[in-house]
Amino acid sequence: MDNFILNQENELYYETGYSCDNAIYLSLNGERFFITDGRYEIDAKQNAKAEVIVSKNLLKTAKQLILQKRVKRVKIDPLNWDYESFVSLSKIVNLQKIANYSHKKREIKTEKELNLIRESVKKGAEAFEKFKFNIETDISEFELSYRFKEKLTNRGKNELSFEPIVAINENSAKPHSFVTEKLLQNGDLLLLDAGLKYKRYCSDRTRTISINGDISVSKIQKFKNKEQQKIYDIVLKAQEEAIKNIKVGMKINQLDKIARDIITKEGYGKYFVHSLGHGVGLDIHEYPYVNSKNETIIKEGMVFTIEPGIYLPNKFGVRIEDMVLINYNSEVEVLSEYI
Amino acid sequence: MDNFILNQENELYYETGYSCDNAIYLSLNGERFFITDGRYEIDAKQNAKAEVIVSKNLLKTAKQLILQKRVKRVKIDPLNWDYESFVSLSKIVNLQKIANYSHKKREIKTEKELNLIRESVKKGAEAFEKFKFNIETDISEFELSYRFKEKLTNRGKNELSFEPIVAINENSAKPHSFVTEKLLQNGDLLLLDAGLKYKRYCSDRTRTISINGDISVSKIQKFKNKEQQKIYDIVLKAQEEAIKNIKVGMKINQLDKIARDIITKEGYGKYFVHSLGHGVGLDIHEYPYVNSKNETIIKEGMVFTIEPGIYLPNKFGVRIEDMVLINYNSEVEVLSEYI
Repeated sequence: MDNFILNQENELYYETGYSCDNAIYLSLNGERFFITDGRYEIDAKQNAKAEVIVSKNLLKTAKQLILQKRVKRVKIDPLNWDYESFVSLSKIVNLQKIANYSHKKREIKTEKELNLIRESVKKGAEAFEKFKFNIETDISEFELSYRFKEKLTNRGKNELSFEPIVAINENSAKPHSFVTEKLLQNGDLLLLDAGLKYKRYCSDRTRTISINGDISVSKIQKFKNKEQQKIYDIVLKAQEEAIKNIKVGMKINQLDKIARDIITKEGYGKYFVHSLGHGVGLDIHEYPYVNSKNETIIKEGMVFTIEPGIYLPNKFGVRIEDMVLINYNSEVEVLSEYI
Repeated sequence: MDNFILNQENELYYETGYSCDNAIYLSLNGERFFITDGRYEIDAKQNAKAEVIVSKNLLKTAKQLILQKRVKRVKIDPLNWDYESFVSLSKIVNLQKIANYSHKKREIKTEKELNLIRESVKKGAEAFEKFKFNIETDISEFELSYRFKEKLTNRGKNELSFEPIVAINENSAKPHSFVTEKLLQNGDLLLLDAGLKYKRYCSDRTRTISINGDISVSKIQKFKNKEQQKIYDIVLKAQEEAIKNIKVGMKINQLDKIARDIITKEGYGKYFVHSLGHGVGLDIHEYPYVNSKNETIIKEGMVFTIEPGIYLPNKFGVRIEDMVLINYNSEVEVLSEYI
C-alpha cells in the first residue's frame, strides 16, 4: 500500500472529491487525511472523502501524522514542493521522489471520468456553436473573447479550462497569442482555442475559421485567400489522418509522426512548432503527451487532443484540435466533433 | 551589488518591466538576464529591460550563465523554487536563502508606483459605482458577480486583482465565500470585495451594503435589521479609528490593536477572525502585513488595506475595506474613498 503526500488542488480532488487552495493530503497505511485551515473546515468535512484535520500549520500537522503513524517511507512529487517544505519533511521521514506521481496515476481514466469528460466536451462544443452568432466584424479580439467567455462559462457558472485564444490573421501565427484591440474584418482568418470545466473535468478544442458570409465553427471552411485555404487543407488532412490511425496497442509517438510527416511532405514541417497533442482531465495538460518522443502504448481510458498546426510568422496560423478518448470497448471516440 | 535569481511573474515584471509564464531572471555583477523560451522571444526583446536569452531549458541556461560570470554567491527565495530546481542550482553555486526576497524589496513603492496604484484604486472604485446600477433583486450571486466583473474588467480589458467575493446574508459570514445560486432579496445584506489591475498594479476594496431602496456602495449604509446595523457601525468605527491613527514612524501592529480593541470592547473580538490588512502592489497580498505581530515601522511609500470585519456564523458578516498609502510628504491618503 502506497504512502504518499500531495499538495496540488486537482491531486487532492482526485483522491478525496474535494479541494481548496490551502491543504495537504496524506495517505498513510491506507488511512486518508485532509489537512486544511479553519476557513475550509465546514466545506471539507462535508465533501472530502478523508479524515479532515484543521490546522494553522499544515506542514507541521502533516509531520506529526507521519511520525504518529510510524511509516518508513512516503512518496512525494519533488516538482510540487518548495525547497523549504521538502527539506523539512525529509528530516522526519524517508522521502521517495517520484516526479509527476499523481499525473501518472491519472493517465488512465475510469468510466465515470470518461463520462464527465464527454459531457465537458459536449458543453464546450455547444458554447462554440452559441458563440458563432456573436461574431461580428468591427469588434476587437478583446470583445470577441469576452463574448466567447460569456458562452463558455454560461455567465460565470462554469470555469474555463484556460484563458481562450482568440486571434485574427497575423496574431494567429503565435501559438500562444494574447488578445489585442485588433478589429475583425470581412475576409479575415480567426483562430479560436477554448474549453470549459464540467464538474472539474476540462475540455479543449480549436477551430480556425473564415470570416466570409455565414460563419461556421465546423471543420469545413472556405477561405478567400488561397494560401490560407492551402494551409488549412494540409492541417485538416494531418489531423484527420492522425485520428483515423489511433489504435489501442500502438505507441503514441506514431501519431505525432503521421501528422508531422504529412505537414513535412508539403514543405511546412518547420512551421509545425509544437507537439501533436496532450492528455486532458482534471488538468488541461496531463498524461499522455502526444509528441515525437513518448513511447507510451495507447490504452483504454486514455483521453488526449489531436491538434496539428502550421504557423507562418507575420502572416497567419492554422490549428485544428479535437479531443479523442479510447473507451472500454477499445473504440476511439472523437469527442469535440459531437456537434 | 546583489547577485540574485527570480522566477515569479511579478518579480520579473518588477525588475524588467516584462514577464511571461516561463522565464528566469538573473542579476549577476550588475548584468541583467531574462531567460525565456521561443514563444516569448519577440515580446521579451521588445519589452524586457534586460538581455533576453532564448532557451529550451531555462534552468540549464541559468546555470551556464552563473558559471560563466564566476559569481560566488546568488540570493534566492527558497519558497519560490521547487526542490529539484533548487538542488540543481545549489550544485554549481553557493545559494543564499532569503525568504520573500522580492516582496521585501517591494515593500516601499516609488512615486511612479504610487501613481499607478492611485489610478488602479480610482478605476476600481468607479467600477463599484457603475456596478451598483446592475444590482437587482431576484438575481443570483453568480449573476451579480458576472455583472460586477463586467464593470471591473471593462468587458475583459482589465485583469481582476482576484476573483471577487459577492456574498448575501449568511454567505457573507465566511470571510472567503464562493458565489452560489442564492438570490438577492429586498432587505438583504450584500458583501462586495473586489479589485482590478491597472498596468499590473492591484486595487482592493470591500463594501457591505444594504439592499433597501436606493442602492449605495458608499460607507453610509442603513440596514433594516437592527443587529446588522449594530455590527456595521462597530466595524465602521474600528476602520475609521485605525485609519485616523496611521502615522509615519509608528509600528504597524498598533493599527491592528486599535481596530481590534474597539471590536473586542463591544464583545465581538472572537468574530474578527483575520488580521487588519495587507500590503498591495503587483501582488494583491504583499508587504507590509497589518497584523498583531508585525512590528514594521510605517514609512513613506507604503500601501496597505485597512479591513476590519465581524463574522457571525450562519447569520451574516460585515467587512469594510479601503486602501491607504503614505505619500512622500508623509501624508496618509485614503485611496478607495475617492468617489
